[in-house]
Amino acid sequence: MNFVDTTLRDGHQSLIATRMSTEDMLPALDAIDKVGFYSMEVWGGATFDVAVRFLNEDPWERLRKIREKIKNTKLQMLLRGQNLVGYRHYADDTVRLFVRKAVENGLDIIRIFDALNDERNLLIAIDEAKKSNAHVQGAISYTISPVHTIEYYLEYARKLIELGVDSICIKDMAGLLTPKDAYNLVSALKKQFSIPINVHSHCTCGLAPATYQAAMDAGADIIDTALSPFALGTSQPPFEPIYYALSKNGDLPALDWDTLDFLIDHFTRVRQKYAAFDVKMTTIDPKILYAQVPGGMYSNMVKQLQEQKMAHRMKEVLEEIPRVQKDLGYPPLVTPTSQIVGVQAVLNVMTGERYSKVTKEVKEYVKGFYGRPPAPIDPELVKKILGDEDVLIYVILGEIGKKYLQKR
Amino acid sequence: MNFVDTTLRDGHQSLIATRMSTEDMLPALDAIDKVGFYSMEVWGGATFDVAVRFLNEDPWERLRKIREKIKNTKLQMLLRGQNLVGYRHYADDTVRLFVRKAVENGLDIIRIFDALNDERNLLIAIDEAKKSNAHVQGAISYTISPVHTIEYYLEYARKLIELGVDSICIKDMAGLLTPKDAYNLVSALKKQFSIPINVHSHCTCGLAPATYQAAMDAGADIIDTALSPFALGTSQPPFEPIYYALSKNGDLPALDWDTLDFLIDHFTRVRQKYAAFDVKMTTIDPKILYAQVPGGMYSNMVKQLQEQKMAHRMKEVLEEIPRVQKDLGYPPLVTPTSQIVGVQAVLNVMTGERYSKVTKEVKEYVKGFYGRPPAPIDPELVKKILGDEDVLIYVILGEIGKKYLQKR
Ligand SMILES: [Co+2]
Ligand SMILES: [Co+2]
Repeated sequence: MNFVDTTLRDGHQSLIATRMSTEDMLPALDAIDKVGFYSMEVWGGATFDVAVRFLNEDPWERLRKIREKIKNTKLQMLLRGQNLVGYRHYADDTVRLFVRKAVENGLDIIRIFDALNDERNLLIAIDEAKKSNAHVQGAISYTISPVHTIEYYLEYARKLIELGVDSICIKDMAGLLTPKDAYNLVSALKKQFSIPINVHSHCTCGLAPATYQAAMDAGADIIDTALSPFALGTSQPPFEPIYYALSKNGDLPALDWDTLDFLIDHFTRVRQKYAAFDVKMTTIDPKILYAQVPGGMYSNMVKQLQEQKMAHRMKEVLEEIPRVQKDLGYPPLVTPTSQIVGVQAVLNVMTGERYSKVTKEVKEYVKGFYGRPPAPIDPELVKKILGDEDVLIYVILGEIGKKYLQKR
Repeated sequence: MNFVDTTLRDGHQSLIATRMSTEDMLPALDAIDKVGFYSMEVWGGATFDVAVRFLNEDPWERLRKIREKIKNTKLQMLLRGQNLVGYRHYADDTVRLFVRKAVENGLDIIRIFDALNDERNLLIAIDEAKKSNAHVQGAISYTISPVHTIEYYLEYARKLIELGVDSICIKDMAGLLTPKDAYNLVSALKKQFSIPINVHSHCTCGLAPATYQAAMDAGADIIDTALSPFALGTSQPPFEPIYYALSKNGDLPALDWDTLDFLIDHFTRVRQKYAAFDVKMTTIDPKILYAQVPGGMYSNMVKQLQEQKMAHRMKEVLEEIPRVQKDLGYPPLVTPTSQIVGVQAVLNVMTGERYSKVTKEVKEYVKGFYGRPPAPIDPELVKKILGDEDVLIYVILGEIGKKYLQKR
């Protein structure tokens, strides 16, 4: 079994709003490098933005400093396709430059995903990462909807593999993947393809530890975990018990507990240092299981409704979300589509008339700004948003028309 | 799959020092009864003591009030064999009266265990529970030691079944049962015996959710969970995600989320009410994985060492514990043996000479006061504690000699 340690990226991004600074990381690097992780996720996601915006830190400098200390473990980042580590589509040459610089500065593995699983958003990033001789991991955004079947995921994995990815990640950002679904999906991928399968989930609603167990039973090659001080809550499952269980039963060598002891104490102090930013969850958030939305999206909506003194209408909003998701062609609820769907669902409930107000983001989404949805967008909604004349441009000219409407 | 809800016993015992009062429970009972639990653990363990000692409550009255409201769900308690819900051995007629009264007041299932897995400590309680027509569950105290093999557990289960228990519980109080060991143990028990197998674990060191998954794969019939506000930390795995996963995949009917929503909100408020007593764990306690001791024992020892200004010697104490455990014939580390072993290990380290000071409890243990250990006690230790003359009485007269020494 191979472990990716997410402590320095998803761990603190999920639990302390990405506030861990380079100086908090440096004293731990020698020890982390000794644990025997397959890889460490240390860059990308929100770390780029938060380093500059809040920590007054150069993210490139952080990467170089980490690389200097980490001799034995691969380093990896999370890249949002053509969005890179930002929130809009960038020009192709920007994408190429970014990927090249990321690899030059020490990254071995680039995990690339698109919120809509539109592989066209990944083409440039994958191509450049391959040219830079990085290991390219293609990530599947996991979600639950009538169109997100095993066949759908297999088909998307096939597209990624055709683009040349070296491994596949099932990226379950909402933590909604069940043990049985994980077992079936991993089994199907392993049967069909010969490249390594990585599973990435979050503990938010309590499924992930059992889901990892089922995924390993099905032959998953790599799982993402965090050191326990930055695990659980909305983060990944903790590394220590999974490794312990495998080593106790002879499937892995014994852990160096002195090294772990040092790391646990170090990161426990780091977590305490950022208590002001801490999600401070002592248990799971079970409501997400019936809301079927990611934890971050859920708490955003609670906040949004409270500000409007509409907290009591949460249930209606939760019922509206799958309808909006359906109207928009079942986008997985991950940044940025989670916000797009969530805000529109709140608006639909608040106004009392669905789509009587439509956000700028939904308009852009319908115009194809974010890529191709997994299923067609509701034609009535397209008509409502674009107006009859534009619909004719959209329908008659297809992609060309779409591009024109986006740019106009 | 059958679920035992532990919220009203082990859940709050593990997370808020057993402080939940009857008035905190009553408003939730109608809803809990609707969820569809196989059973609710609501009595026994520390609840009897804490109700009287700290809450000024009649524990019998609590049981009657719960029974009055719970019409569809079985009610169960945890009974520490001849120790009942106290901390010493009681006379047989006390045990019989207690069990009879417990059933009379509304309990359906009595889960009976002995810390040493000495079935002689269970005879009277099992006999009386059967006479009272209760469902008797025999619990195996799970621990890790060279003598605690699958064969050992199968043999103990056989003894319990010969005594007439209706089901078997694997009681993993330290949360050290790994998925693979659970799979193997449950499979072996299911293969050998035809009565239901229940698994009870704690999340303290992060194994339990995956362990439940493996136990279910192996055919476990019943698992113990708590509602999420009283789950995780040092408590049981949360109910909601496990049920959700099974129902999503069609193995169970859908949950009534309105009822769950009410219960989650109610118990979230109750947990906040007792914040002063809360363990407030946001993640697992991974050190227990290498210390191999239960969480409660671990924190007691930390406190004990801190008071003696010896916190820096924790590592030596942790290394001494398995040696003391071996000397004492590998008792499982559960109340009261966890304290007995822990305090003696601290003494051995503090004094610098092993067993130069021996606690009263170790002396009583060696004299057989607590029952028969899983393996023989180290003869040197017996000699040291009893003195040569008493050793002769002990060795030559066996059980008779032991009884005499205990009573003298
Ligand atoms: Co993530
Ligand atoms: Co327990």
